[in-house]
Amino acid sequence: MQIDVVGTVNEARSDDFYHKTVIVIDVLRATSTIATALEHGCAGIIPVETVSQAVKLQTGEYMLGGERFCKKLAGFDLGNSPLEYTREELAGKQVILTTTNGTRALQKSQKAENILAGSLLNASACAKAAVELKRDIVILCAGTLDMFSIEDGLCAGFIVDEIGRLVNEQIALNDLGIAMRLACAQAKEAMEQILLESAHGKKLTKLGYRDDVVFCSRINVFSLVPILKNQLLVPYTSSKSDLRS
Amino acid sequence: MQIDVVGTVNEARSDDFYHKTVIVIDVLRATSTIATALEHGCAGIIPVETVSQAVKLQTGEYMLGGERFCKKLAGFDLGNSPLEYTREELAGKQVILTTTNGTRALQKSQKAENILAGSLLNASACAKAAVELKRDIVILCAGTLDMFSIEDGLCAGFIVDEIGRLVNEQIALNDLGIAMRLACAQAKEAMEQILLESAHGKKLTKLGYRDDVVFCSRINVFSLVPILKNQLLVPYTSSKSDLRS
Repeated sequence: MQIDVVGTVNEARSDDFYHKTVIVIDVLRATSTIATALEHGCAGIIPVETVSQAVKLQTGEYMLGGERFCKKLAGFDLGNSPLEYTREELAGKQVILTTTNGTRALQKSQKAENILAGSLLNASACAKAAVELKRDIVILCAGTLDMFSIEDGLCAGFIVDEIGRLVNEQIALNDLGIAMRLACAQAKEAMEQILLESAHGKKLTKLGYRDDVVFCSRINVFSLVPILKNQLLVPYTSSKSDLRS
Repeated sequence: MQIDVVGTVNEARSDDFYHKTVIVIDVLRATSTIATALEHGCAGIIPVETVSQAVKLQTGEYMLGGERFCKKLAGFDLGNSPLEYTREELAGKQVILTTTNGTRALQKSQKAENILAGSLLNASACAKAAVELKRDIVILCAGTLDMFSIEDGLCAGFIVDEIGRLVNEQIALNDLGIAMRLACAQAKEAMEQILLESAHGKKLTKLGYRDDVVFCSRINVFSLVPILKNQLLVPYTSSKSDLRS
């Protein structure tokens, strides 16, 4: 099983995604938010790239969520803070979500056979789902404005390590995958501290979102994995992979 | 002191290099070769980007060195194997060198105030020189054909760690710098193995250059640091930095 870690959306070559499982990672905060929303009963997330697409799609039946410059958009119901996505009124509702990096990475992955949303919150579950889907894997780190983000890299490293364990090391890694696995082995015990000291973590803290950074640094608190089906992110279920194989 | 690690030549923004010290890293093999050549008495290396530039510059007084697709160029005196650059006839001679990634990275760094060539072979010396030069630092990993190369990333991480130690941790790091420092802490004892398993290491081994990979994985065997002065790479001497400060 080949696993390639890609450091930013910009570096992704979408033609390389055919027949593969892509795991999109945007720890701060899109994919953490998506996992949290689904975990709390949200009926599905529609990721869109631009604000105008989000507004155009809104027919009244959805909730609108997202950010630009880390902040909630004017007229939107929700921002991009995972802590907002635990609200009871989300249960059973679908959310249209647009963010700066994460939803862009999801859009860029469209040619993949399977698209999962990974975060530290559901890292091991994500590794397990990717193994079940039996395809070569690309872990696409969203990064921040085309710069590498350490929180995404470490999460990728964690998932790589977990997959390695699950398949008895029958994996081949690209160089960034090897590097991130090494970095994560060193970082695992200090994840919260490292996230708080990361470029994006510092920015979010400055803007008043320190609690989000702390929340997103927790490892394996959810066993749910968002998967994109017909442009809608919904919980992955093992039975689907059984049907496939 | 700000230290930014840049993962590939493609990501480098040369306008960000003004007033800074850039350390170019191409462990496999250009900057390892350059350090080895100067260590063995070579009078200087002229790095050029293209084969035709190299040939045009040749007036008979230089030796011609370089590679394309890892192999020595037709009509050239030397390839890009550090082991070739220990030959006695190099002493006192200047070499015109063109390689796929390393010399391109050096060219891309032209706007920097100081340009050093770093490798595992001279990593600690390189860190010391960069500290003496008293500027913010960019560590530019050459990578391989615009892909991140782990050997360059780990070398960058090693130099970051060494600089941190030298200045009592009075450093600010970008995210890739933090990640590479973590990865290197985990990798230091297994450098040869990791280099042999890297994408470029495997390719070189396949082409018969395994000894080069092993040679380039050795840490701190030279105390010499190549610095670019008037388009010529020569040994850095501390006295120059004393004159500057």
